[in-house]
Amino acid sequence: MVETLKDIGEFGLIARIDALLKREGVQAPGVSLGIGDDTASFRARPGHEILVTCDCVVEGRHFLSRHISPVNLGRRSMMLNISDIGAMGGQPLYALISLGLKNETPVQDIENLYRGFLVELNPFGASIIGGNLTKSGNGIFIDITLIGEVEEGRAVRRSGARPGDVILVTGYPGQSAAGLALLLESLASEDQALVKAYNNPSHRAREGRAVALTGCATAMIDTSDGFVGDLGHICEESRVGALLNQEKFPLSDDLRKAAQKLKKEPWQFFLGDSDDYQLIITCRPEHVERVRSAIAATYEGPVTQVGELTTAEQGVRVVLADGSERALSAKGWDHFR
Amino acid sequence: MVETLKDIGEFGLIARIDALLKREGVQAPGVSLGIGDDTASFRARPGHEILVTCDCVVEGRHFLSRHISPVNLGRRSMMLNISDIGAMGGQPLYALISLGLKNETPVQDIENLYRGFLVELNPFGASIIGGNLTKSGNGIFIDITLIGEVEEGRAVRRSGARPGDVILVTGYPGQSAAGLALLLESLASEDQALVKAYNNPSHRAREGRAVALTGCATAMIDTSDGFVGDLGHICEESRVGALLNQEKFPLSDDLRKAAQKLKKEPWQFFLGDSDDYQLIITCRPEHVERVRSAIAATYEGPVTQVGELTTAEQGVRVVLADGSERALSAKGWDHFR
Repeated sequence: MVETLKDIGEFGLIARIDALLKREGVQAPGVSLGIGDDTASFRARPGHEILVTCDCVVEGRHFLSRHISPVNLGRRSMMLNISDIGAMGGQPLYALISLGLKNETPVQDIENLYRGFLVELNPFGASIIGGNLTKSGNGIFIDITLIGEVEEGRAVRRSGARPGDVILVTGYPGQSAAGLALLLESLASEDQALVKAYNNPSHRAREGRAVALTGCATAMIDTSDGFVGDLGHICEESRVGALLNQEKFPLSDDLRKAAQKLKKEPWQFFLGDSDDYQLIITCRPEHVERVRSAIAATYEGPVTQVGELTTAEQGVRVVLADGSERALSAKGWDHFR
Repeated sequence: MVETLKDIGEFGLIARIDALLKREGVQAPGVSLGIGDDTASFRARPGHEILVTCDCVVEGRHFLSRHISPVNLGRRSMMLNISDIGAMGGQPLYALISLGLKNETPVQDIENLYRGFLVELNPFGASIIGGNLTKSGNGIFIDITLIGEVEEGRAVRRSGARPGDVILVTGYPGQSAAGLALLLESLASEDQALVKAYNNPSHRAREGRAVALTGCATAMIDTSDGFVGDLGHICEESRVGALLNQEKFPLSDDLRKAAQKLKKEPWQFFLGDSDDYQLIITCRPEHVERVRSAIAATYEGPVTQVGELTTAEQGVRVVLADGSERALSAKGWDHFR
């Protein structure tokens, strides 16, 4: 008999989670009250701003239970939020977990979901300080609020970029989308590098923080809406345009091969929707090397200069290999279209 | 043609919400970054602790769309969270709204939902600083994270109660449950007082804050899990028992009449699950008058002494009108049983 939520009830589950967190989690600094009261509470560190973000994953929409293990689902859900804190230059500290669950959900799956959260939180010394449990009619959802801190005045916004700034990107955006496409066409197995990129995305939060501490980035964002979508957010908030150089796009050999199999241009994967959680960073040309070396301290992947910012009137354009220019629509991932 | 979410898309909706909040909302102090970046950010006030809570309402579980207007749904969802901040003695400041929506949701309904949030937030000078929008397969959900502050050391926990403390309760817990029962049996109309208590619950957050500032409360909680359920939380966290006096229970004439119609004992409504969001406060007997007068500054309803705390071994018991004692199970509202 598999023990389910119905067997132990809400308060039974809270007690089990509380015990698991005490056993396997860490205690973030500054917490004055954790799970088990009307609210949690903490003391902010002087000289710091508080960052707060929330992101939700929904069964059937962002994941299928039969295709992802509870531990990986927990990791993925938490990773999305850590990526957002890192893209501001912050340090994750406290998480609140709001779950919509079904009566028949096995208790062990929920415990493993929390283990997934901890795999991501523990290395930062961050902890789960509260949350909510509720019954969801259909499909579970995992809504996480993540709170972090950043030294006052050091947060890197989307709005500080200026014409003439260069556009840098970490890693290989598009790998995850190509991995998903291979999976959907049954063209690759689980251990293929691109499929791994899709199944186990990782964040660049440490690198985002290191970049912020250099003081050199004029804007920064994570690529959760795809490269063009997120570059578009910077352009909109900073009121600038962008000129990209297609020949500079970081495309791995794996991606080139996959694109061939899938009969697509590899750079389309780079530009479009993809769950990669890399960073787009803009900075003055003379600061590129400082940004690069800040990232290189913890990340071995490439940091590529893919273009530069222009005035807003010029929109977002790409120079193709043959020298021709094409305008890009700055549409990123839109949940309702 | 009703404009739906599908017509304007995620980013269209974010722009509309942002405009509505700027037009109809207030700007909470300390916000350094609101909607439109990877995270929101704020500066904590020196000498204060940050409080954080989250609560979620799910269609079909906590509400039925055809029985509640979007404005009232927004009010109710926000009220739950404000109640939790108030039950710690805090002041609400910043909300993050995570919505699961359907493609066919009318845009106007969502705008009215936000208007409902603002009806509750504006009087506190609190504002919405971020959130998340996602598509939900079936049924919408509204998950709110509310952040507040309280002067350092002033938060009133569940864990500070001691044997010999008196148990006070505000208002008439049970009214909402009786209103719901009348609705389900088609025994009352919308304008009946108990039905109103169910349809438009209100919080005692101002009173909770006033009580906290007296420094006299040893424990405090809102009655979101029903009177016995929430008294049980205090007993568990404070490791005490309780002896209640049935004859002291605050029961309105409306409730007595409704109970007669429903063929139930009126005090069963008082003790059981009910969406009333009143406060249970424990304090030393010599502090009762200070607590009462703090509450009376903003609340005209009763503050009733319904019993006192005992040692944990004695459990939670009630003395009935005939002098006999009965043990109560401290089961509150459990979402999965």
